Amino acid sequence: MNLHYGMKINEDGHLVISGCDTVELARQYGTPLYVIDEDYLRQNCKKFKEAMNKYFPNGRVMYASKALNTKAILKIVNSEGLGIDTVSGGELYTALSVGIDPKKIELHGNSKTKEEIKMAVENGIYCIIADGFDELALIDEVCEELNKSIDVSIRLRPNIDVHAHHAVQTAKMDCKFGFGVIDGQAIKAAEIINNSKWMSLHGIHCHIGSQIFNEEPFSELCRHFVDFACEVREKLGVEIKEFNCGGGYGVRYTDADEPKPFEVFIKLISQSLTLLCKERNFPMPLVSIEPGRSIVGETGTTLYTVNGIKEITDIRTYCMCDGGMFDNIRTALYEAKYTAYCASKMNEKHEKLVSIAGKCCESGDMITWDTPMPKSLKRKDILAVLTTGAYNYSMASNYNRNSVPALVLVNKGKSSLAVKRQSYEYISMNDVVPEYLK
Amino acid sequence: MNLHYGMKINEDGHLVISGCDTVELARQYGTPLYVIDEDYLRQNCKKFKEAMNKYFPNGRVMYASKALNTKAILKIVNSEGLGIDTVSGGELYTALSVGIDPKKIELHGNSKTKEEIKMAVENGIYCIIADGFDELALIDEVCEELNKSIDVSIRLRPNIDVHAHHAVQTAKMDCKFGFGVIDGQAIKAAEIINNSKWMSLHGIHCHIGSQIFNEEPFSELCRHFVDFACEVREKLGVEIKEFNCGGGYGVRYTDADEPKPFEVFIKLISQSLTLLCKERNFPMPLVSIEPGRSIVGETGTTLYTVNGIKEITDIRTYCMCDGGMFDNIRTALYEAKYTAYCASKMNEKHEKLVSIAGKCCESGDMITWDTPMPKSLKRKDILAVLTTGAYNYSMASNYNRNSVPALVLVNKGKSSLAVKRQSYEYISMNDVVPEYLK
Repeated sequence: MNLHYGMKINEDGHLVISGCDTVELARQYGTPLYVIDEDYLRQNCKKFKEAMNKYFPNGRVMYASKALNTKAILKIVNSEGLGIDTVSGGELYTALSVGIDPKKIELHGNSKTKEEIKMAVENGIYCIIADGFDELALIDEVCEELNKSIDVSIRLRPNIDVHAHHAVQTAKMDCKFGFGVIDGQAIKAAEIINNSKWMSLHGIHCHIGSQIFNEEPFSELCRHFVDFACEVREKLGVEIKEFNCGGGYGVRYTDADEPKPFEVFIKLISQSLTLLCKERNFPMPLVSIEPGRSIVGETGTTLYTVNGIKEITDIRTYCMCDGGMFDNIRTALYEAKYTAYCASKMNEKHEKLVSIAGKCCESGDMITWDTPMPKSLKRKDILAVLTTGAYNYSMASNYNRNSVPALVLVNKGKSSLAVKRQSYEYISMNDVVPEYLK
Repeated sequence: MNLHYGMKINEDGHLVISGCDTVELARQYGTPLYVIDEDYLRQNCKKFKEAMNKYFPNGRVMYASKALNTKAILKIVNSEGLGIDTVSGGELYTALSVGIDPKKIELHGNSKTKEEIKMAVENGIYCIIADGFDELALIDEVCEELNKSIDVSIRLRPNIDVHAHHAVQTAKMDCKFGFGVIDGQAIKAAEIINNSKWMSLHGIHCHIGSQIFNEEPFSELCRHFVDFACEVREKLGVEIKEFNCGGGYGVRYTDADEPKPFEVFIKLISQSLTLLCKERNFPMPLVSIEPGRSIVGETGTTLYTVNGIKEITDIRTYCMCDGGMFDNIRTALYEAKYTAYCASKMNEKHEKLVSIAGKCCESGDMITWDTPMPKSLKRKDILAVLTTGAYNYSMASNYNRNSVPALVLVNKGKSSLAVKRQSYEYISMNDVVPEYLK
């Protein structure tokens, strides 16, 4: 068993996360239950901050909150000195609602609505990362209406191909994100921003993809950044102030994943930029990164109760859990792999292959396939699925009108509710029965 | 343009659904917006009822509410005389909350919780379709606690392979659903139910899959039903009362789909059963079906506003809409295909290939690929994506903290709100900031 930081096995043979017995957590809060190790989360924030401080004195770490955006999580990340990267009005609203300084928030997105841009400009956030010509016009329109200006960065699409699931490759030429560099769209965007009465050209951004284990693509990214910044300087006489390198740093879902320390990426970015800027006589810019999954992914564990075991002779053993694709759609969506244990029987040998099925009415609703489990696995046992901190709660749905689970923080033996479990009343609260149907 | 029943184009060149101008609906209710044609929905209910009445005097049509379960939809379907098939506590709660007679409700699911079974038994629903040995023990346990009995049907897994997406094939041997027939699990289940003090063996059930366009597999299903019912009669001396044939009748997403009239399926089931029952001297059972998608799928249309167009020279044109995988995950999840039109420019030739991108921050968030659209398509135009009545709202999430859209009913020129749009307050209502973080 290759447990994450903060995980232990106690004398009852139960999985313990940051001092909290998971079987006890399941009893206290019910299942399915998202458990976030706050201590681990803070450690990850600190590691990124320290690595950035080491190489980039004014470097910014912006937490990509799409990975997990709840009020408590944002408070924690913010208290560790990180900024918040948001991608929608809802994420921005949540960040503002817990009192995060707007100057520590940025807004992303390939299809921002007018209302979202308005919220960003009105609140005077750090910058908008612009993603299309229509959006530039819309930002101008909103600023004009509000009589307020805003810093704007340009999302670049420099055509970088990384080894990752096609759905999370985000810098190829054929992709909805960003302004193309080689076809001249990005420089045109820079010109528009530079000529605007309301927008200030602040930085350039690129996010190359997700679950990246190899630092090399970041070196390519730096070259594209410096090339483009020099082009802007040459053509527009303006110096780009900030290079935002996005995120994508891989985490460990299974033992097949071998993430490198964050510092490796940051060191390479620093070395590449130092060299390239020197070569081109370009002043070292502010550098920022946007880790999301790498901050919160491994800190999360989902607990389920086993509702039943189904043996299909000579074919497979299914274990029915009380969660499913409504709380974790990544297996169905990306064929994601997870590590799972029987949290109530950690000392029993995990030697029987069991596939963990969700409770939604479709065959594709599976959490894992062929995961080693104790032979004695049975109804009422508690399962722990690891590395569910990112893109689990944030992608949760009410499919089959199931409730989105509660989320608790654990920290050195103490647990605290951070998201309440949805009640049936909550799920159907927005349902309206028109008068004529009553 | 191959428009659905109830759709027209008005003199402004706008798409009209059951007498309501979609551009006007978008203005009035905002976008994204789910629009359900109530008239079409009622027509579909009636068609199923009539076809069943024709071939099976006591036949039951149970609406598979997982396709779309909201209070108003259940009221409509119920008022047309259909029963409600539920698959979770949430769906059951919703059905009961609008006063639907429990005797018209059944409960499915491969991983029912104790609480769900309790709700079913307490309320005295029509029957539970049991799906595993652990569940049979749990039903007994619950009945004992409540001192109430319940009718139970057995979900069979007879190993039928249908041509459909692997995630929606539900009667193969290697599948989480049902009791295996050929390995003797189903007959064992029948025995357990028959010997139970609390459970009455009521029927047998099988759902062979989704989006089935060929009636042949239903003939195979009938053979399995009669074989198994005869086995039960022989071994246990009990006659199975009801054969529940599930759903799976295909709908038209694109012109490549050519659904047959519902009656074709029901006629074949009737012919097969009549023949087989006569051959085996088995009394004709009650027959029920569980259409979901085929009742509600084509009645739904999603309206989006265009936020921008992105031309990638020689590669692709992306159209950014204000929805995405948070309101329709089927493209990302199943590579589903949809038909889409520019609802605000229906009279303009749809001749330019455009890919409709969602607003979520991942490349895989696409609604359609290469859909013909007017050349003049631009920001503020309204898009209509057809056949989104099933598994769109029901699978919606708050991914990227986007709001689940509103849902309106349209009927002969009148529109009525059936689900309110989620506010940001609603989305974050369950967020808790523990005291020590304040």
